[in-house]
Amino acid sequence: MDSERMEQQVRFLLEVDKLKNVERRTYLLEGNRHENSAEHSWHLGVMALLMAEYANEPVDLGHVLGMLLVHDLVEIDAGDTFCYDAEGAKDRAEREQRAADRIFNLLPPDQASRLMELWREFEARESAEARFAAALDRLMPLFHNFYGKGSSWQEHGIRADQVRERNRHAREGSEFLWSHAESLITRAVEEGYLQPPR
Amino acid sequence: MDSERMEQQVRFLLEVDKLKNVERRTYLLEGNRHENSAEHSWHLGVMALLMAEYANEPVDLGHVLGMLLVHDLVEIDAGDTFCYDAEGAKDRAEREQRAADRIFNLLPPDQASRLMELWREFEARESAEARFAAALDRLMPLFHNFYGKGSSWQEHGIRADQVRERNRHAREGSEFLWSHAESLITRAVEEGYLQPPR
Repeated sequence: MDSERMEQQVRFLLEVDKLKNVERRTYLLEGNRHENSAEHSWHLGVMALLMAEYANEPVDLGHVLGMLLVHDLVEIDAGDTFCYDAEGAKDRAEREQRAADRIFNLLPPDQASRLMELWREFEARESAEARFAAALDRLMPLFHNFYGKGSSWQEHGIRADQVRERNRHAREGSEFLWSHAESLITRAVEEGYLQPPR
Repeated sequence: MDSERMEQQVRFLLEVDKLKNVERRTYLLEGNRHENSAEHSWHLGVMALLMAEYANEPVDLGHVLGMLLVHDLVEIDAGDTFCYDAEGAKDRAEREQRAADRIFNLLPPDQASRLMELWREFEARESAEARFAAALDRLMPLFHNFYGKGSSWQEHGIRADQVRERNRHAREGSEFLWSHAESLITRAVEEGYLQPPR
């Protein structure tokens, strides 16, 4: 077999170790530190294993898992853009495309294309698998926030209407999960974890 | 749909957040801290995406990914047993079985059985998918150690024969990857990252 191919793959694996140092705004439930994007990606994979049954359309679970594993790799260069950060959102697409070009191209060309395509598919939300994967990516932080008594929401003064607005595309992946999320948002306002809608 | 089912699934997802606090002996390549078992599980998933082509037998990638996502969950109760810790290995199976009984049974019965079965399959290494998944689980720490200049090996005074002995079942999953690992072990002794065989 081709050892140059293997070396490129290993170099990529070593490079993506850096995702373990990309901090998100979400706190671990035990509250001792922020979550990083690598462990978040793992957690979404476990969520997909359990909740694929709630997808609006039948999904290929292996394909969903592939997308979830790679969906945040661009953050190694581009950083995690907090989903309520309107300023950071402006050049996010451009920063992430540059990151994708550098990181995925460490791989042999066929695998670079395959992973780039998985990442694009996730971002575009045009397939059933991507809509479902993207729904999980929005709902997990909502669970983290709700069951962590809204620590990250409170820290950033987030309102219920912002949470609804930023996350409602989750319903395109799963009506069932989104209706559960809506009830958590209502309860979060009652509990004082989230500010009421403006 | 059944909201009790959904609540059990959410409770499980919140519980497994704790895997992000289970420390392994391996260091991140940037060397600033130990790796945790959740981000390790993610990293193995990415490795599987790229290296399934080196499995001795054709494998169902989605099934490999499912096993890798859940293979370390028992560590939430049982802790990570360092693979060169002969003392810890004695009651490892018993500690892990107790952990599996508690953790997987937070889920609705059908999913508890399914995840328990994935974990058992991984441990037993009787399917092609399990042999390959277990090979990755052994090889990734070897990459981490080698490219991190042997920091964890040196800290624990590990010898080359121990690394060969503990990890050689990886060849049952991938002869190709194991032969690459053998060459890294030889180079690690030359570089002084590993102690020579006794």
